[in-house]
Amino acid sequence: MTPIDPDFKTRMAALIDKRDWHALRREIADLHSADIAELLGHFEGDEFNILFRLVGKRKADAFSYFPVERQKELIRETEPAQLSQLVSQMQPDDRARLISVLPRETSNIILARLPPSEIKRSLVSLSYPEDTAGRYMTPDFVALDPEMTAAEALAHIRQVGRKKETLNVVYLVDKDGRLVEDVTLGNLVLADPEAKVLDIVEPGFVDLRDTTPQEKVLEAFRKYDRVALPVTDASGHMLGIITVDDVMDVAEDEMTEDMQKIGGMDALDEAYSQTGLWQMVRKRGVWLAVLFIGELFTASAMAHYEQELARALVLTLFIPLIISSGGNSGSQAASLLIRALALKDVALADWWRVMRRELASGLALGTVLGILGFVRVTLWQWVGVVDYGAHSFLIATAIGLSLVGVVTFGTLVGALLPFLLKRLGLDPATSSAPFVATLVDVTGLVIYFQVAALILRGTLL
Amino acid sequence: MTPIDPDFKTRMAALIDKRDWHALRREIADLHSADIAELLGHFEGDEFNILFRLVGKRKADAFSYFPVERQKELIRETEPAQLSQLVSQMQPDDRARLISVLPRETSNIILARLPPSEIKRSLVSLSYPEDTAGRYMTPDFVALDPEMTAAEALAHIRQVGRKKETLNVVYLVDKDGRLVEDVTLGNLVLADPEAKVLDIVEPGFVDLRDTTPQEKVLEAFRKYDRVALPVTDASGHMLGIITVDDVMDVAEDEMTEDMQKIGGMDALDEAYSQTGLWQMVRKRGVWLAVLFIGELFTASAMAHYEQELARALVLTLFIPLIISSGGNSGSQAASLLIRALALKDVALADWWRVMRRELASGLALGTVLGILGFVRVTLWQWVGVVDYGAHSFLIATAIGLSLVGVVTFGTLVGALLPFLLKRLGLDPATSSAPFVATLVDVTGLVIYFQVAALILRGTLL
Repeated sequence: MTPIDPDFKTRMAALIDKRDWHALRREIADLHSADIAELLGHFEGDEFNILFRLVGKRKADAFSYFPVERQKELIRETEPAQLSQLVSQMQPDDRARLISVLPRETSNIILARLPPSEIKRSLVSLSYPEDTAGRYMTPDFVALDPEMTAAEALAHIRQVGRKKETLNVVYLVDKDGRLVEDVTLGNLVLADPEAKVLDIVEPGFVDLRDTTPQEKVLEAFRKYDRVALPVTDASGHMLGIITVDDVMDVAEDEMTEDMQKIGGMDALDEAYSQTGLWQMVRKRGVWLAVLFIGELFTASAMAHYEQELARALVLTLFIPLIISSGGNSGSQAASLLIRALALKDVALADWWRVMRRELASGLALGTVLGILGFVRVTLWQWVGVVDYGAHSFLIATAIGLSLVGVVTFGTLVGALLPFLLKRLGLDPATSSAPFVATLVDVTGLVIYFQVAALILRGTLL
Repeated sequence: MTPIDPDFKTRMAALIDKRDWHALRREIADLHSADIAELLGHFEGDEFNILFRLVGKRKADAFSYFPVERQKELIRETEPAQLSQLVSQMQPDDRARLISVLPRETSNIILARLPPSEIKRSLVSLSYPEDTAGRYMTPDFVALDPEMTAAEALAHIRQVGRKKETLNVVYLVDKDGRLVEDVTLGNLVLADPEAKVLDIVEPGFVDLRDTTPQEKVLEAFRKYDRVALPVTDASGHMLGIITVDDVMDVAEDEMTEDMQKIGGMDALDEAYSQTGLWQMVRKRGVWLAVLFIGELFTASAMAHYEQELARALVLTLFIPLIISSGGNSGSQAASLLIRALALKDVALADWWRVMRRELASGLALGTVLGILGFVRVTLWQWVGVVDYGAHSFLIATAIGLSLVGVVTFGTLVGALLPFLLKRLGLDPATSSAPFVATLVDVTGLVIYFQVAALILRGTLL
């Protein structure tokens, strides 16, 4: 592993200064394409151009590893002739992904200069909606006649195998183009050369439909421990394959989306650093405004209890404490169960079991916080830090009991909201921490004032 | 893909009733081991035993796919003789993971019955700390002499390749056991049979150290798009390999941990459904209690402004609204930047750039909410829903301006706290939504009362 550390970068810059092309080319030749891309990311202008030229025939490969924004930038700067050469050498799936983010004029320039067969290959995957298996597949797989022997199969792979996305798994496809089975190259090599390929397949054949949503693709890879899975159309025709490295990127994107949603915003389409300020403010502002409008009900709830507030101002002091405890317990429960649902650790049908469990958790947690709250008020009064007046014991009791109620309620709302959203066909991750907190804030106030009214009636209220 | 749906389950149950072992065995034979494990998960007692027996020689394989708790349960129920047979057939890495979670007595019973060579293989990976590459590696790889030709290499693989974890990548190891390079089986098959294996390696060799932490392992797989990576010790001796399917599990665990931390709790060691109620309450309660103690400062802050509150009770009505808006904007920013840091989309050194950017975002978002707040108060007063008194315009202004301040501050705290934690060598994900919200609540109150004092001095205050 040659880490692209500052030292390495400095050494390369020095070699550029010395115009030692030979040494530079040798250093670059030893690097993984991903590292070449990272290294190039540290250079600009002429230095960048010199280095990029020295990458030689792995240019398209390194280019595939650039961040999308940098790819777009480079494409703007490159002349059409060179550009189409670069793009035509990319893997079809990487190329399709690039074309999908380019402005229409640029993608047309590129497509116009590709050989017709390549245009078709690029356009097939682009014809599928984003977030489906079809979009992620590459047509670069090895197909075998199921009637072949292992030896014939290996000979065929030697002929056609160059430049394929992967040889780790090859596919048995019948005369009509229907996928029959897959077989690993390892098993082909180990098999008796005379054995029919159809007889050396492993049990438990797994395939994906072109329309399979990306979460299901991810699930299949997680479950079946495969390095590549085939994609077919409705009638079983083999369309392409998806490889595990692309699925890892999908997993990353899905997680980022979930995380951003749980944080209470619309998921960004691109990485944080690649998102414009305006788009960012929009994606965050919409949710903040919705939450704000929800939170306005707290002002109405408070107004409803204005008389009580006026009579017992001391109650107001604990409002932030009590509602935020409800919000915190709700956030905990929500993020736990959003994740458990995503991992299929719990299913929709488990909601009743989860509810009983979270009721117990909520009561236990509420009791802990309730005791802490009770002790705090009693202690401050006793030590004399603050004077809560003659009814401090009753106030402490009201606060303690409210906390039990609010935390239990917050826990239940946080735990069950993801189930409700999923039941409604929505993404459970939308039950973000702020969303749960807002729901619990309003109810928390009502619980607090009702408990206080019950306990302090006739004394303070 | 044979989905394990209720219909399939019912059909299998019917076959058990009919004692049609032949049909059952045939159905099972067609399933992937992961699906067999899933199917078995739907059965208990005698039905389970019958089905599990029919799995035949893939028993150990299917067993590896069981949830850990189920594995433990089965191990308790199985006699030692059968048990050691089952466990000895598991892949060394799966076995090591199982042994690591079993009670000492049980693992000793299992180890005592394994052949000595297998004991050693299992114990090597267990000697590494959890969350390091050493723990996840398997010793089941194919090593080649770098002097071999491609034809010799393939012949060697045919001899030793059975039962290896993967053949997709094989490893060139010198006479002292030092790792030289890796080569894909695909390239071996494509190469001229007479070519030396050392000459067909691809540029950009990547290896991992046994002590590499699991996040770095994950990063290497994400970056280099490999299906397996080799693990070496400090002097470069080849110890084992890590395969991408295990890394996908690591990625899942890491994300679950991050999500639970962001939700404001200690990450669970096991899945939600596998965690006992008591452990769950402890992991959640500790954080809730810490946040509660932090939130107690809101009560002190409020007490500090008690005079103002008494004079202008109307101010209390908007306290939940204002502090929660700060908390929400903080949660957003925190979850965005925790994720961006985890993905290396932004680095520690970018903190200044992020701060300027988030200052702009915060001001924009704060202005939006501030206007909403101002409009709400003015509108309610104008329509006559509530009467905020003679100074309602000033109150609306105070609320609007406070929101700008609180949201900007919340955004900055949420965005920068992950950087601070990372700088201190802590996990950025610890800057959970509730933690940020608590920090912002206290400061939010201070901002609110200061702004209100400034604007309402001489009128209401």
